[in-house]
Amino acid sequence: MIILGIDPGLGTMGYGVIEAQGDKRRVIQYGVISTRPGEATPQRLRSIFKGVNQLLDIYQPDDVAFEELFFSKNVTTGMAVSAARGAAIVAVAERTENLYEYTPNQIKQAVTGYGRADKHQVQQMVKLLLHMEDIARPDDAADALAVALTHANSVNQKQLFKIR
Amino acid sequence: MIILGIDPGLGTMGYGVIEAQGDKRRVIQYGVISTRPGEATPQRLRSIFKGVNQLLDIYQPDDVAFEELFFSKNVTTGMAVSAARGAAIVAVAERTENLYEYTPNQIKQAVTGYGRADKHQVQQMVKLLLHMEDIARPDDAADALAVALTHANSVNQKQLFKIR
Repeated sequence: MIILGIDPGLGTMGYGVIEAQGDKRRVIQYGVISTRPGEATPQRLRSIFKGVNQLLDIYQPDDVAFEELFFSKNVTTGMAVSAARGAAIVAVAERTENLYEYTPNQIKQAVTGYGRADKHQVQQMVKLLLHMEDIARPDDAADALAVALTHANSVNQKQLFKIR
Repeated sequence: MIILGIDPGLGTMGYGVIEAQGDKRRVIQYGVISTRPGEATPQRLRSIFKGVNQLLDIYQPDDVAFEELFFSKNVTTGMAVSAARGAAIVAVAERTENLYEYTPNQIKQAVTGYGRADKHQVQQMVKLLLHMEDIARPDDAADALAVALTHANSVNQKQLFKIR
């Protein structure tokens, strides 16, 4: 199956596409959808919407997995990222109901076996699990591959986390 | 000119369509886009996206004005409403760059002349300014008409508040 992982953001939205068959995983593509800070929010949200639609056109993922958002401190940032996440979800929801979501701790646990692993450990394990020559750059793309890997594990364990 | 006012929300998104010519204002339509709490968020966001697209198809507004969101306490609610706002903005941004945003205080000030007016005073003034027989129901629809009226005033005063 093809899984698209997404790490939501208004300025930089990471994406990672993998193929998972049984216990095998293969990286297909990764990168970021970037929007310019000088642009107005509506145009930035539109770029995200269009960018996600392009990813869906090209890679035809079976499932799409998002990293869950947590905001306790900066409400303004939280609202901007939530709007970006809304724009991405709308694009996906037009095509499939297979939307999933994982917390940062779930992702760390799934990828490294340790829920409090640091960013570097997660990136090293993403590289190892996907047989990549280098660590995926930028960080948001590596995070998106990590959430895709997390979903692949969840599918194997039949413990799915649909976005409710 | 035709103005579409929107009061964002995930469960209930109010809308109000008015025509403004000089100092004259006329109500064209108002109501709400409702989504079911039992549905998953992606499907609710999709309903909002489709509903806003239908409003744009039917009323072909020149400008679209949103009530601005403020969240200091409930972050979870703020994230849900921000996602809904993102879905609505994406729909509008596909058609026009004329997106505007007003704070609750700006709306109260514009509609009643008093920035700390209560909900009932705002609804009474919306009724009066639009020569309506009754107060617009539900509240979210009345709020959406109020934001459309606020934008009509801003256009006259050449003090526009584009969404940045």
